[in-house]
Amino acid sequence: MFSLTEKEVQAQIEAFAQFGATPDGGITRLLYTEEWLAAQQFLQQRLASIGMSTRFDEVGNLFGRIEGTKYPAETILSGSHMDTVVNGGKLDGQFGIIAAYLAMEQLIKTYGPPLRSLEVISMAEEEGSRFPFNFFGSKNLFGAVKQQEIADLTDIQGVTFEEAMTTAGFQLKASAQPARSDIQAFLELHIEQGKILETEEKTIGIVTSIVGQKCYTIVLKGEANHAGTTPMSYRKDALVAFSTICVEATAKAKLLGDPLVLTFGQVIPKPNVTNVVAGEVHFTMDCRHTDEATLNRFTTEIEKDMKKTAQAMGLMIDIQLRTDEAPVQMDAACVALLQKSAEKLQLPSRLMHSGAGHDAEIIAKFVPTAMLFVPSIGGISHNPAEATALKDLMAGIETLATALYELAYIE
Amino acid sequence: MFSLTEKEVQAQIEAFAQFGATPDGGITRLLYTEEWLAAQQFLQQRLASIGMSTRFDEVGNLFGRIEGTKYPAETILSGSHMDTVVNGGKLDGQFGIIAAYLAMEQLIKTYGPPLRSLEVISMAEEEGSRFPFNFFGSKNLFGAVKQQEIADLTDIQGVTFEEAMTTAGFQLKASAQPARSDIQAFLELHIEQGKILETEEKTIGIVTSIVGQKCYTIVLKGEANHAGTTPMSYRKDALVAFSTICVEATAKAKLLGDPLVLTFGQVIPKPNVTNVVAGEVHFTMDCRHTDEATLNRFTTEIEKDMKKTAQAMGLMIDIQLRTDEAPVQMDAACVALLQKSAEKLQLPSRLMHSGAGHDAEIIAKFVPTAMLFVPSIGGISHNPAEATALKDLMAGIETLATALYELAYIE
Repeated sequence: MFSLTEKEVQAQIEAFAQFGATPDGGITRLLYTEEWLAAQQFLQQRLASIGMSTRFDEVGNLFGRIEGTKYPAETILSGSHMDTVVNGGKLDGQFGIIAAYLAMEQLIKTYGPPLRSLEVISMAEEEGSRFPFNFFGSKNLFGAVKQQEIADLTDIQGVTFEEAMTTAGFQLKASAQPARSDIQAFLELHIEQGKILETEEKTIGIVTSIVGQKCYTIVLKGEANHAGTTPMSYRKDALVAFSTICVEATAKAKLLGDPLVLTFGQVIPKPNVTNVVAGEVHFTMDCRHTDEATLNRFTTEIEKDMKKTAQAMGLMIDIQLRTDEAPVQMDAACVALLQKSAEKLQLPSRLMHSGAGHDAEIIAKFVPTAMLFVPSIGGISHNPAEATALKDLMAGIETLATALYELAYIE
Repeated sequence: MFSLTEKEVQAQIEAFAQFGATPDGGITRLLYTEEWLAAQQFLQQRLASIGMSTRFDEVGNLFGRIEGTKYPAETILSGSHMDTVVNGGKLDGQFGIIAAYLAMEQLIKTYGPPLRSLEVISMAEEEGSRFPFNFFGSKNLFGAVKQQEIADLTDIQGVTFEEAMTTAGFQLKASAQPARSDIQAFLELHIEQGKILETEEKTIGIVTSIVGQKCYTIVLKGEANHAGTTPMSYRKDALVAFSTICVEATAKAKLLGDPLVLTFGQVIPKPNVTNVVAGEVHFTMDCRHTDEATLNRFTTEIEKDMKKTAQAMGLMIDIQLRTDEAPVQMDAACVALLQKSAEKLQLPSRLMHSGAGHDAEIIAKFVPTAMLFVPSIGGISHNPAEATALKDLMAGIETLATALYELAYIE
């Protein structure tokens, strides 16, 4: 269908990977840094070179646009985010942007200008890796960030969010940006960051929903004691209490089954030495599910269990809910369109949920949205070793182009 | 019986607590440091002032001696160690030295010179807090340290053991010190460092044995994965594996019962962040018992269990035994003498084992040895808050003096 080659896709990825390149082959490109700005400016030139009109919005989201010949006020949008995590890979975020403009470039080369406007978006920020704030780019598309939300945020060097923004040449005005009302559909292509597609030998994952997430920080307080002189019956061992909670909650999570996932990822005992019974343990619990009621019911039960376990062992427990995000459903028509597109290309695909957060979950609240995934080799992401087979990257771009054609070229 | 007052005991403790005093009221007095040397020299003056002849041995153990009038070649020894842990308390170690010379001073004041020689020992080192080597003081009493054992040891500043020793004016010769053969008995008074005596309202604990100890460092290797995109059935979660091991082994330890203690004190997960399944966990396991066969049988079983758990969950496990010390029995006659002494003073006492290591466990291998404990308030030790009621400290000194009288003054 297209003249696009694997070599060209590879070259585009490598060109962007220079901005923030790390010694071990990854990228660190945090919001509003020099390397971030250089990458956005490089993209602006690239978009202009294929005939797009380009513009930055107030906060640094970059757009490249081809006007529709018949319905110019109706925009079909695709893209992803330009920022990365610290020492991230070459695909998370930037590949969704590259795929969008390559797909649009091929469509225009093949079919001429579209009936509806085609627009690429390179969102300023999604990862929350410089400041403790996620989805700054996509939220600003719809005026969903207030100045005071970011007023007190600083990065690890103590630079404020506003200083960083000003240095890069942007500014969040007191009155939020007006929400865009011209967008008819948003499609985001992303790597899976898991290994379901790889395991099941599927090339395309079509996302039906993005999980809701509840994330807790929990402190257990027992009593630090000498490991030799304190009989077992005298102890209030915070590590044994944590372990009991972890084992029991994990068993319940497995019993409830997919798509529930429950993770105890961080555990910090105190004093954390060989010969002292742990007096305190700080730990995190991350729970995700596609159904809000199930997620709430499960975490409520685990909270109760944790309190019961702590009490039975004579420990104090403090449970703080830090993240509470509801699941987001993708648009049924967009999902069906992506399915049809993969079928047309005879690519093995499956419907699936996304266990990770994406810009699409913000945008889906405002406009019809869907996502498609390509396989991650070994499920690795947020790591320089993040990779996808070139043929799978090609398949993703072709599926996206096929869907964009339907949206922008067909009456 | 004696003219010794609580005020005098308090004053002696505070005088020594100056050497290495920390801002929060503790002591940091590591082997061969200036503050350590100053404390030993201060003690030397103190011992000389009560009529003792004093000497340092090659490695910095300090002795104060009153010759016996009838059996001068038979020595009754008492004391403890002068070093502390980092930010330790005012009793661990130094109180056993102070108690010994105060008891001997009172005996001499009351009864004149003894039939057998009385000797105080202030051991150079026990805690292993500066260099990774324990019991350097007591081992050198019996020529049980070889030069090459310490040749490669350095402290955290990179100073070698030998440099530190030379700076303080001491030297470990290639031929180890000859073992002493004149010692008829060694008694060590120490704080309990646990809360058995406090809980049972006993003033004196008479130690019958010191536990054996096996200490392991263990590494579990699973797979680090995204907490959102990795279904539960795909995971090799090293923290869930650790927790399973901790819960099961702790239950078995409780079932076996006292005096077995089992502690998982240190746990270091990797990468240790909220949204990543732990790919690796490094942890320690410390197990102690007074009976060698039981200790070996129990740890062998737990080692097998751990391997089984790791295998069942698809993880690799590496188990390294780092410390392997057999239990040590105290001398039955010395134990009986201490019991009789506490009874004579009408002090509530109990026989017990020591869950912590002490110089007495080294010395017991060479000469008849026993230990007595006084209560630790709240069981706290290795901490500036370490404390014992003054009346209990007095009771300890009186019990020690009563036993020393029997050993040194009675035919």
